[in-house]
Amino acid sequence: MYFHDKRLQYPVKVETPDPLFARQLQQAIGGVEGELRVCLQYFFQAWGNRSPNTKYRDMLLHTATEEIGHIEMLATAVALNLENAPLSLQESTAAANPVVNAVMGGERPRHMVEGMLHKHLLSTGLAAFPGNADGAPFDCSHVYASGNLAADMFANITAEATGRTLAVRLYNAAHDPGMKDMLSFLIARDTMHQQQWLAVIEELGGPAAQLPIPNSFDQSLENREFSYVFAGTDRNGEPPPEGRFTQGPSLDGKGQFSAKQAEPLGAAPVLGAARQGSGAQTEQMDATSSA
Amino acid sequence: MYFHDKRLQYPVKVETPDPLFARQLQQAIGGVEGELRVCLQYFFQAWGNRSPNTKYRDMLLHTATEEIGHIEMLATAVALNLENAPLSLQESTAAANPVVNAVMGGERPRHMVEGMLHKHLLSTGLAAFPGNADGAPFDCSHVYASGNLAADMFANITAEATGRTLAVRLYNAAHDPGMKDMLSFLIARDTMHQQQWLAVIEELGGPAAQLPIPNSFDQSLENREFSYVFAGTDRNGEPPPEGRFTQGPSLDGKGQFSAKQAEPLGAAPVLGAARQGSGAQTEQMDATSSA
Amino acid sequence: MYFHDKRLQYPVKVETPDPLFARQLQQAIGGVEGELRVCLQYFFQAWGNRSPNTKYRDMLLHTATEEIGHIEMLATAVALNLENAPLSLQESTAAANPVVNAVMGGERPRHMVEGMLHKHLLSTGLAAFPGNADGAPFDCSHVYASGNLAADMFANITAEATGRTLAVRLYNAAHDPGMKDMLSFLIARDTMHQQQWLAVIEELGGPAAQLPIPNSFDQSLENREFSYVFAGTDRNGEPPPEGRFTQGPSLDGKGQFSAKQAEPLGAAPVLGAARQGSGAQTEQMDATSSA
Amino acid sequence: MYFHDKRLQYPVKVETPDPLFARQLQQAIGGVEGELRVCLQYFFQAWGNRSPNTKYRDMLLHTATEEIGHIEMLATAVALNLENAPLSLQESTAAANPVVNAVMGGERPRHMVEGMLHKHLLSTGLAAFPGNADGAPFDCSHVYASGNLAADMFANITAEATGRTLAVRLYNAAHDPGMKDMLSFLIARDTMHQQQWLAVIEELGGPAAQLPIPNSFDQSLENREFSYVFAGTDRNGEPPPEGRFTQGPSLDGKGQFSAKQAEPLGAAPVLGAARQGSGAQTEQMDATSSA
Amino acid sequence: MYFHDKRLQYPVKVETPDPLFARQLQQAIGGVEGELRVCLQYFFQAWGNRSPNTKYRDMLLHTATEEIGHIEMLATAVALNLENAPLSLQESTAAANPVVNAVMGGERPRHMVEGMLHKHLLSTGLAAFPGNADGAPFDCSHVYASGNLAADMFANITAEATGRTLAVRLYNAAHDPGMKDMLSFLIARDTMHQQQWLAVIEELGGPAAQLPIPNSFDQSLENREFSYVFAGTDRNGEPPPEGRFTQGPSLDGKGQFSAKQAEPLGAAPVLGAARQGSGAQTEQMDATSSA
Amino acid sequence: MYFHDKRLQYPVKVETPDPLFARQLQQAIGGVEGELRVCLQYFFQAWGNRSPNTKYRDMLLHTATEEIGHIEMLATAVALNLENAPLSLQESTAAANPVVNAVMGGERPRHMVEGMLHKHLLSTGLAAFPGNADGAPFDCSHVYASGNLAADMFANITAEATGRTLAVRLYNAAHDPGMKDMLSFLIARDTMHQQQWLAVIEELGGPAAQLPIPNSFDQSLENREFSYVFAGTDRNGEPPPEGRFTQGPSLDGKGQFSAKQAEPLGAAPVLGAARQGSGAQTEQMDATSSA
Repeated sequence: MYFHDKRLQYPVKVETPDPLFARQLQQAIGGVEGELRVCLQYFFQAWGNRSPNTKYRDMLLHTATEEIGHIEMLATAVALNLENAPLSLQESTAAANPVVNAVMGGERPRHMVEGMLHKHLLSTGLAAFPGNADGAPFDCSHVYASGNLAADMFANITAEATGRTLAVRLYNAAHDPGMKDMLSFLIARDTMHQQQWLAVIEELGGPAAQLPIPNSFDQSLENREFSYVFAGTDRNGEPPPEGRFTQGPSLDGKGQFSAKQAEPLGAAPVLGAARQGSGAQTEQMDATSSA
Repeated sequence: MYFHDKRLQYPVKVETPDPLFARQLQQAIGGVEGELRVCLQYFFQAWGNRSPNTKYRDMLLHTATEEIGHIEMLATAVALNLENAPLSLQESTAAANPVVNAVMGGERPRHMVEGMLHKHLLSTGLAAFPGNADGAPFDCSHVYASGNLAADMFANITAEATGRTLAVRLYNAAHDPGMKDMLSFLIARDTMHQQQWLAVIEELGGPAAQLPIPNSFDQSLENREFSYVFAGTDRNGEPPPEGRFTQGPSLDGKGQFSAKQAEPLGAAPVLGAARQGSGAQTEQMDATSSA
Repeated sequence: MYFHDKRLQYPVKVETPDPLFARQLQQAIGGVEGELRVCLQYFFQAWGNRSPNTKYRDMLLHTATEEIGHIEMLATAVALNLENAPLSLQESTAAANPVVNAVMGGERPRHMVEGMLHKHLLSTGLAAFPGNADGAPFDCSHVYASGNLAADMFANITAEATGRTLAVRLYNAAHDPGMKDMLSFLIARDTMHQQQWLAVIEELGGPAAQLPIPNSFDQSLENREFSYVFAGTDRNGEPPPEGRFTQGPSLDGKGQFSAKQAEPLGAAPVLGAARQGSGAQTEQMDATSSA
Repeated sequence: MYFHDKRLQYPVKVETPDPLFARQLQQAIGGVEGELRVCLQYFFQAWGNRSPNTKYRDMLLHTATEEIGHIEMLATAVALNLENAPLSLQESTAAANPVVNAVMGGERPRHMVEGMLHKHLLSTGLAAFPGNADGAPFDCSHVYASGNLAADMFANITAEATGRTLAVRLYNAAHDPGMKDMLSFLIARDTMHQQQWLAVIEELGGPAAQLPIPNSFDQSLENREFSYVFAGTDRNGEPPPEGRFTQGPSLDGKGQFSAKQAEPLGAAPVLGAARQGSGAQTEQMDATSSA
Repeated sequence: MYFHDKRLQYPVKVETPDPLFARQLQQAIGGVEGELRVCLQYFFQAWGNRSPNTKYRDMLLHTATEEIGHIEMLATAVALNLENAPLSLQESTAAANPVVNAVMGGERPRHMVEGMLHKHLLSTGLAAFPGNADGAPFDCSHVYASGNLAADMFANITAEATGRTLAVRLYNAAHDPGMKDMLSFLIARDTMHQQQWLAVIEELGGPAAQLPIPNSFDQSLENREFSYVFAGTDRNGEPPPEGRFTQGPSLDGKGQFSAKQAEPLGAAPVLGAARQGSGAQTEQMDATSSA
Repeated sequence: MYFHDKRLQYPVKVETPDPLFARQLQQAIGGVEGELRVCLQYFFQAWGNRSPNTKYRDMLLHTATEEIGHIEMLATAVALNLENAPLSLQESTAAANPVVNAVMGGERPRHMVEGMLHKHLLSTGLAAFPGNADGAPFDCSHVYASGNLAADMFANITAEATGRTLAVRLYNAAHDPGMKDMLSFLIARDTMHQQQWLAVIEELGGPAAQLPIPNSFDQSLENREFSYVFAGTDRNGEPPPEGRFTQGPSLDGKGQFSAKQAEPLGAAPVLGAARQGSGAQTEQMDATSSA
């Protein structure tokens, strides 16, 4: 079960509220690359973890819980960036705030209503919501918890890689020192989280031991003629670029890479004609299918 | 641009059509772990690839194009498994197919309408559609193409890891030899595809060179005090499990792992009161905010 | 504005409630092919109709309003089919209704909970909802109202064609005489609605006058070399099948059909390298892009 | 920020695993009526709470945090109900578990694969996911946080009312004593949560003080002729049923209820014709709109 | 069944078309707080209403039917606000309409294309669609019809509370007198609709009789030790704020409120290890699970 | 199976990159009217085509394959329009590009960040994604493949009609000669594609032979009293507008059009009261339903 402390994990301060940046921050809350996703992903991986020991379940719970606090920090940052946002176009046009103008080059605040996310004004009362920078709600199909530990670790590295990429883009777009400071913390946490999921793979023997995923499937049942060959699909048979993936031992140590032009091994498919009663046109049915 | 050959990449044969297995196969077409996802993912990564050279763009195009053929194989398999599926409950109840019954233990076909996906009967005329085993349409937010090459490679490993896990589960659930043969091919291709995306990371120097992602961000700008420390969130301060992620050098060679209990460093947040005109209740407004 | 009469447009009677058929009927309410879609589609086409006269706006309002009554009929049919549905597995197992059993071959009601839609039991209290047979809510992106009258008429023919196809499939799957009677009415209305939208195209001069849609675009601005040629994409240059679409005058009377193998006319695309600050990997950037 | 204790808020035990009940429990995790929704709803209401004091923010944080633990309990219950679920149809058919059969009347386990949610088998490895009983992912547009305290309290009462209704339906459908015990706890918590949100409304003066919501809007600006009249829309002018809503003082004490047949007060709308360049058909344009 | 009158329920006039306001109005059509939602919600509650008498069914039908007319008014308002909207950036830049400029302060129309919703230009031909201000289609999972009358009434109060909050925000953002007049009518109708659903609760005895919802569940089956206690989850045991919800009789008169720190009553969960054939990694399986 | 050629089907050139136009082009990739939809639609129609001969399957494969190349062209166009897009507001404000300004009237580039799609900056690294101009991902429920050939052909005409309408709107909005040239090609292909699907209908005998769809249903089973009558729903009985749809022979030659005011033929529906155990309020249950 869970507990809270009403203080934030790290300070969140905004000197110059910017409703456009509030919008961009939403991506880090409810975007595919955002904190809501990793939070729920780690929780569901933990709660469904099947294993003879509970080490990784425990580890996941620590980090999942940390992530709630990151959502909280970002939601706070969104609300602070929406302080004094214009409630109407007129207000926006009238309020030529000279301080902000000086910072931004004297051009920006006049059109803030056009740039900001209407949902912030119309639906949330100048606060954050669990959706992305386009206003789209987060959809939990992005919570990856496959029941396979190695697949989940790679999913987590991916989530933190896209998460840190987003945080870096936001850092580069930010102009407020408080926002840059908050992002410097979140970027550091993403650095660690990329590391820790990769460390699990390493601890379990690295790709050589863990791949192909799932490693519990007897590879003699797969058609091994096709297991380590790069398939070229250039129409004229131009070979694929040479690389680590076309030659040398495979990274799991179980095969040798090669490259080969793909050619059809199957026939053109033949489906049965439409049947009476199936809602097709008569022309789709066999002359003899009247029964 | 693109070309087709009307033959299949690999043979698809079904001896005993099974509408329930048709349903399960849909997950491999339009599920999050499915072929439609990887196909579009590799295409959009290729089409948006920014780099001084086009090596990975070209490589991605080869494999993306291959994946169209996998969707085609699975769609064919779905249609073949739906041959002679019951069009009504009565037909289902009546058609006690003794051959299938013998295979399955004499119990199954009577209730096939209940088990099959209604969309196959009501909406597609006994054919496949681009959705999953629950009938949910594929949603292209699962096409990950971040503009960051390393993040995309990890996303691709993840996609192929969950894809092969799904294919293995389908293999285990299958009873038709044609279906097992088709899956033994698709599993082998997933083996290779896991390898090839990992090989790109290796070719670029491995995690040490590629992490933290994005590696183009100057790490002196992140708050490095928090970059390699595992944050414990146990309420009673019970430390996290020890592992590769709590000690030793970090996997990018840029830090030392440690573990530490997380404590709030920020204050409880204070938001401005609701403003006149913002649609809040009067009680949410400052007594002095009448302007 | 709108008014109601609490009586139904056509009688809805169910002799033998069938929770599985209740599930299938949901497709006709909230499926892509369903009545909720056409209702909203005709309303939004009417409300947004731009034209010097209001003839088609008026016509659309008549039919849109009729469709509300069709949703009502189907929602009533769903509720009637859920009368006495089992509220638990035990109830389902115990209630071996001999009357239904006789009709269905003595096998069905024992497993009704497994076959029925759980949402009917858990979320609606044995009533209809605006979603499809898989429980997915209707999503209004399927309401097609393009602002182009001819495009909308074709969209409407499509909607009624898939709608009648669905109704026919339900008719074939139904076993209750009341349900067959209700569907015989809805199928007839779909017959008419297909006709009436096609009649608008005819009234405006038929495809020759209305195509290409939009007909207000000056065709001299399109690249007419490609306007009436079927493009073959067979990898080996095998020509497409011959048909009305490869020879003879085009159906708009503005060109001659032909067929031709497609070949690339453009170059391989070259995108700029990733820029500093864009969140890419360093390897994606030009050596010279340090600024 | 947040902390965890690896023990559950309340015991979760399953004597007889039932994959069909696992499916039904998903509705309480990721359904519209489920715990994920209330958890996120209370968090976002807290994090965005604007008010001169923080009382309700604090209160919301306590309960939001509690709700994480409810999701955890249910996710655990799902996983326990999936222990030993069949991985294939053959396994399902073969494993005629006599113990379960005795409980259920000897009929159930043979078809378990058909009844269970395929996602549990194919996508999660026999564990819970953040979606509902039909496999649909939770969509965060159901997280209601409007920025208006009273509207949010009514949204919360609604969420807990539908939540307890669902929990009661699950209790009635359950047959395992451990599951009934867990649900008797969750139902009790829903009882309290309904109360506590209603108590906020009461504490603020009840509906008389809080309605109409938002109470900060000057009612002299609304068209008060229509503020307390029930509008009848029967086609024949048959009056609406009499009730508390057609007579007597309004519940906010600011008007008198009445009922009246609605009649159109506006004209038929007239939109401008389609313009050149807007993609409409020529027939939709004014003869004179050639510019 | 249903009928229409081609006149509007209330006049809709726009003096100065504003494509940005057209965008904001979409939220009142197809947003979660919008008219499409309440319209369908009341219809589905009516059509599925189970009760010994039909009073509330009838009442719901009256209001559901009224709501179609509100969508119609708003759709008309959107179309009128899009009259003469720019079809391209050049047109937008060139058309420095001095009249509008005078009203708005001389700054706005130049960038209208950037501010307006692209869907209005690209997809609807300058008309409304059933989606929100961000262009997201309305999703019918927001149509709440639970089969429980009291839960539905609270859902309706919520819908009208957020609906009126939205209408007030639009009123405050509007600058056109015709739009303010239309909204003054819609706000008044929302006032009434909030009242009428609350009146149903009152008529049935108020919260004391109706709570806990569902009131048909025997409370002796819930774990009453937890039914009226506010659970504190502060990590340091700091008690929750005192309020009506922590002391005094409960609002249903069936208990006494109290507050208590929550502590785990359950154990840490233990799930079975992954099984052979379940697609997990070998490391997740028991050494002994080879069967 | 499938093959690629790394060259584009038609040249794609951008002289003056415009991030706002990049946004608008997304609609042609991942909008409902876009190329991703037709590509997948034709593929799934082909792969599921049931018919005694494979002519239309083959034809569909040719065109489906062509459409991949159109997505590729548009994705390339989006990326080229995003070259040098501003990565922050400051960059946008500072970079008053005099060349672009001269073209656009000196007003545009200063606010480009506000107008561009944030996903292009934050999530894709200045590249295309499979979603629309509002950032919403493409949802494959828009892939229409009904199993009925004629319904599918009308769906295809609709898709190409809305597709060409969109392309024309983009052409009118474009200012770059390269973009106009690319669109002149895509518009021409849409012209042909509209034609070719219509030609299939013609080849099969036209509407007279193909309607009502499905033409395999025995019309004597539909309630033919309602098959060719336009139903008026004006509240006052004002007749519908006269047109081709109210008089003369029907277009399928199987009936005569007429018009008639709709009147209720059914009774007001009566549903059973709520049952014990169904989660309703006690007031919804029969006094006698205690069992």
